[in-house]
Amino acid sequence: MNALVYHGPGKKAWEEKPMPSILKPTDAIVKISKTTICGTDLHILKGDVPSVEDGRIIGHEGVGVVLETGTAVSNFKKGDHVIISCITSCGKCDYCKKGMYSHCEDGGWILGNTIDGTQAEYVRIPHADNSLHHIPAGTDEEALVMLSDILPTGFECGVLNGKVKPGDNIAIVGAGPIGIAALLTAQFYTPAQIIMVDLDENRLIMSKNFGATTTINSANEDAVEKIKSLTNGKGVDVAMEAVGVPSTFELCQEIIAPGGHIANIGVHGKSVALHLETLWSKNITITASLVDTVTTPMLLKTVNAKKLEPNKLITHHFKLDDIMKAYDTFENAAEEKALKVILEN
Amino acid sequence: MNALVYHGPGKKAWEEKPMPSILKPTDAIVKISKTTICGTDLHILKGDVPSVEDGRIIGHEGVGVVLETGTAVSNFKKGDHVIISCITSCGKCDYCKKGMYSHCEDGGWILGNTIDGTQAEYVRIPHADNSLHHIPAGTDEEALVMLSDILPTGFECGVLNGKVKPGDNIAIVGAGPIGIAALLTAQFYTPAQIIMVDLDENRLIMSKNFGATTTINSANEDAVEKIKSLTNGKGVDVAMEAVGVPSTFELCQEIIAPGGHIANIGVHGKSVALHLETLWSKNITITASLVDTVTTPMLLKTVNAKKLEPNKLITHHFKLDDIMKAYDTFENAAEEKALKVILEN
Repeated sequence: MNALVYHGPGKKAWEEKPMPSILKPTDAIVKISKTTICGTDLHILKGDVPSVEDGRIIGHEGVGVVLETGTAVSNFKKGDHVIISCITSCGKCDYCKKGMYSHCEDGGWILGNTIDGTQAEYVRIPHADNSLHHIPAGTDEEALVMLSDILPTGFECGVLNGKVKPGDNIAIVGAGPIGIAALLTAQFYTPAQIIMVDLDENRLIMSKNFGATTTINSANEDAVEKIKSLTNGKGVDVAMEAVGVPSTFELCQEIIAPGGHIANIGVHGKSVALHLETLWSKNITITASLVDTVTTPMLLKTVNAKKLEPNKLITHHFKLDDIMKAYDTFENAAEEKALKVILEN
Repeated sequence: MNALVYHGPGKKAWEEKPMPSILKPTDAIVKISKTTICGTDLHILKGDVPSVEDGRIIGHEGVGVVLETGTAVSNFKKGDHVIISCITSCGKCDYCKKGMYSHCEDGGWILGNTIDGTQAEYVRIPHADNSLHHIPAGTDEEALVMLSDILPTGFECGVLNGKVKPGDNIAIVGAGPIGIAALLTAQFYTPAQIIMVDLDENRLIMSKNFGATTTINSANEDAVEKIKSLTNGKGVDVAMEAVGVPSTFELCQEIIAPGGHIANIGVHGKSVALHLETLWSKNITITASLVDTVTTPMLLKTVNAKKLEPNKLITHHFKLDDIMKAYDTFENAAEEKALKVILEN
């Protein structure tokens, strides 16, 4: 089969690799129907994720059809249409038993990281019973690629950790796919205002279409001043960080109201200054977490009920063997007006 | 009357001041029976709290007897024995309506800060209906001085924000009065281990008597290594910061387990480094807050039921007019083996 293989910082190739095979009774082999590229894959390609070794097939999102299952797999059989979760979970370790699948002792985020991933024609999924989700007949499968990672990530790490409530004023710093996923799912809880902050005008325009009440281009405007003016000088009840650099996390600290929640979603490579000299008395909460994907079944119900339309996030389509072109597009997202690209096998 | 008056950094005096009087219909005048000194008062005397001006009577803790009430006060009358809350609250602003009394728009922590406080023979209490608590007949009033501030602070900012659960492993960094208050009230929830970390051997010995399962003198031992060895290498479920300096907050980040809660209690004067480069994926929560004193009635019930014995925190007694001596003792707490000092009027 063919797959997108990482060969050290800056190097990737679409090349032939052996077909994956069942290694443990809990494994399944899935034929990929559709997959996508994540911002995290770009981090990997820059060499930012040292756990990813030369020769690894990357990618951790996708939908597909079960080709083969190990003898211990009881929930899935050949021919089943499935969503692949970006998080692999055994379901029986201490962390899994409390729903913290992201820290599964025999899983977590391993797909396209420490084991071969989904940017391939076929993929081996360990602990298939806990790491795949059935796709109901008649569902738009392509849209469900968004349920592998970005929608549960935006929802769990942004909206749920941020404890979004009806009437809240919310700011989402970063209008990339993850920020937009948070924007879409925040609306489940009917906040009063959702303010999107970014440097890219095109993503801000898309944010407006996706339900943002105000957009701020922080290249041209003082985001702190504008957010204060929109919130009676108090700041926002929830500030979500969806970029992963110190300056955006600092912005969240400046705009948070007393009693507010700062929900970090971004992947950070550096420490940031935490201004406890002002925040110690401000009754705030800060959360930082990997997605546990515990809400994937819930999100699937909202998609089926048409309360969430993930297909709106998809801006570009490629054939899987055109993946190198797809990477070019995704790496130049601002210029290409790209959010999520779909790769079809 | 006489009172302890702040006269700028490093300067205080026990001197004559005018008797307080009712300024608003919601005020009460309370004759102080017992008061105490808080670590925050030492911060004020160092000049760390710029909102406190020259001429201010400091102190925000105490019990007393109501001398006079304004015409709008309905919950208290002359002769009532009361606990004075360190937090003044109007009960009707937006923040009060959601129980965030610490951020009351006409109150919060104002006593001994922006208005005259309790280290005096008499004190004016604004919004008396919401800022005083009745003392049930037959209660040890002296012990209830600990309910003005330190017990609700340790409980709300440490134990409740830290979401202490049965079976949890907990570390409390700082074994001063606030750390001990957290230690005592954490035991309501039956954690498995409570590890106290301090530099003062005497406070660690006291911590053992108060229920700590392990004590670590971080001057002599590697706290991170020891805590990891006590928790199967995972770290603690809850880390409480009860000092207020960058190094202790950094320690909390090093010892927190995936899924854990860092509860800041300390008053900080500087920013600290937040290690998002490791914490972003660790599913942790950080809280920082002033006490709202919403749990004072709950804590009073635990005292009456003898589930909490705040008198154990009291190590020294002085007459109120010996307050200058009491400050000397409290400022040399390690040498004097002091936790809380009681000043009797």
